[in-house]
Amino acid sequence: MQTDNLFKQVAFIKEIDKLKYIQRKTRLFNSDRHENDAEHSWHLAMMTIVLAEHSDKPIDVLKVVKMVLIHDIVEIDAGDTFIYDAVKNHTNTDEELIAAKRIFGLLPEEQAKEFIAIWEEFEEGATDDAKFARSMDRFEPLLQNASNKGGTWAEFNVTYEKVYEKKKAIKNGSTAIWEYAENLINESVDKGNLKK
Amino acid sequence: MQTDNLFKQVAFIKEIDKLKYIQRKTRLFNSDRHENDAEHSWHLAMMTIVLAEHSDKPIDVLKVVKMVLIHDIVEIDAGDTFIYDAVKNHTNTDEELIAAKRIFGLLPEEQAKEFIAIWEEFEEGATDDAKFARSMDRFEPLLQNASNKGGTWAEFNVTYEKVYEKKKAIKNGSTAIWEYAENLINESVDKGNLKK
Repeated sequence: MQTDNLFKQVAFIKEIDKLKYIQRKTRLFNSDRHENDAEHSWHLAMMTIVLAEHSDKPIDVLKVVKMVLIHDIVEIDAGDTFIYDAVKNHTNTDEELIAAKRIFGLLPEEQAKEFIAIWEEFEEGATDDAKFARSMDRFEPLLQNASNKGGTWAEFNVTYEKVYEKKKAIKNGSTAIWEYAENLINESVDKGNLKK
Repeated sequence: MQTDNLFKQVAFIKEIDKLKYIQRKTRLFNSDRHENDAEHSWHLAMMTIVLAEHSDKPIDVLKVVKMVLIHDIVEIDAGDTFIYDAVKNHTNTDEELIAAKRIFGLLPEEQAKEFIAIWEEFEEGATDDAKFARSMDRFEPLLQNASNKGGTWAEFNVTYEKVYEKKKAIKNGSTAIWEYAENLINESVDKGNLKK
């Protein structure tokens, strides 16, 4: 049984290597190089550990770390959807659910169920753990764009209003981080990196 | 105080972005593309979560995840040392300790102490948590090389004896994973991907 589990787990570990090829629209800090999903997920896990004290509500740090580590794995099949895409909705498409079932389904049954449940909890964003995880996912590209003279905002003509609309979800996880984020958005306007 | 912490933490979060530029000798699965340290650390965190049940001793999964997420951050200053390097010792060089103090020192004091302690625990490899973390760090490149017709073993003429010597540390964390690993090493010899 344990050996059987291990074979399945290794198959999953090999499959998720593909996350390293999924390119995001955002770029590394002060850089032209696009970030990939594996790097992004690592950075969110680090941010979760470092910033957990700023969560407004008590959170299960290990669970939030799991959420951010796995939240983009479905993009191996479904691809990255740009958060400001006007046509395709970012969250929880049918395509992503099929991907979750295929990829997490490589794991032993109990583990597959746990991972799918954690991924769905993240996508729904209703629990305190998911709210904090989603704050991290919104905060990282904000820091990147602010360091890249507007980054994807400038590149794709995203306005202040749209940025504010998407980023205010940070507030659901942490008032303190949202205050920091709001200042950064306003500074970006003042510097001419974001159009109001 | 909380705001002061947040400023320090954001400075740290920006600094560690540099881990994405540290290239390892190993390559992605079935690929020519080198892996970078951030991708590698993400993969080890995933492996820790997925494979924790195979640890011979009870482990604190969150602590092991923290270990593998941060274990290579010192390489931002000290660079990656190839595990089979004949001249430079891989573990805990003075250079790495200076790097740990500088980079983790960007964090608020208590957090800096915690991260340096976790990094040192990993480097020493004496606790059950560190043993399992180190198993993960040895197991990932083994899986990669086996998928890449010998990978760095073939590229740098590393013999079976040297590989066995380094990889047997997997056994300190998990008998089950070591059995799997040992089979994979022997198969690599049989396939002509590793010279005995």
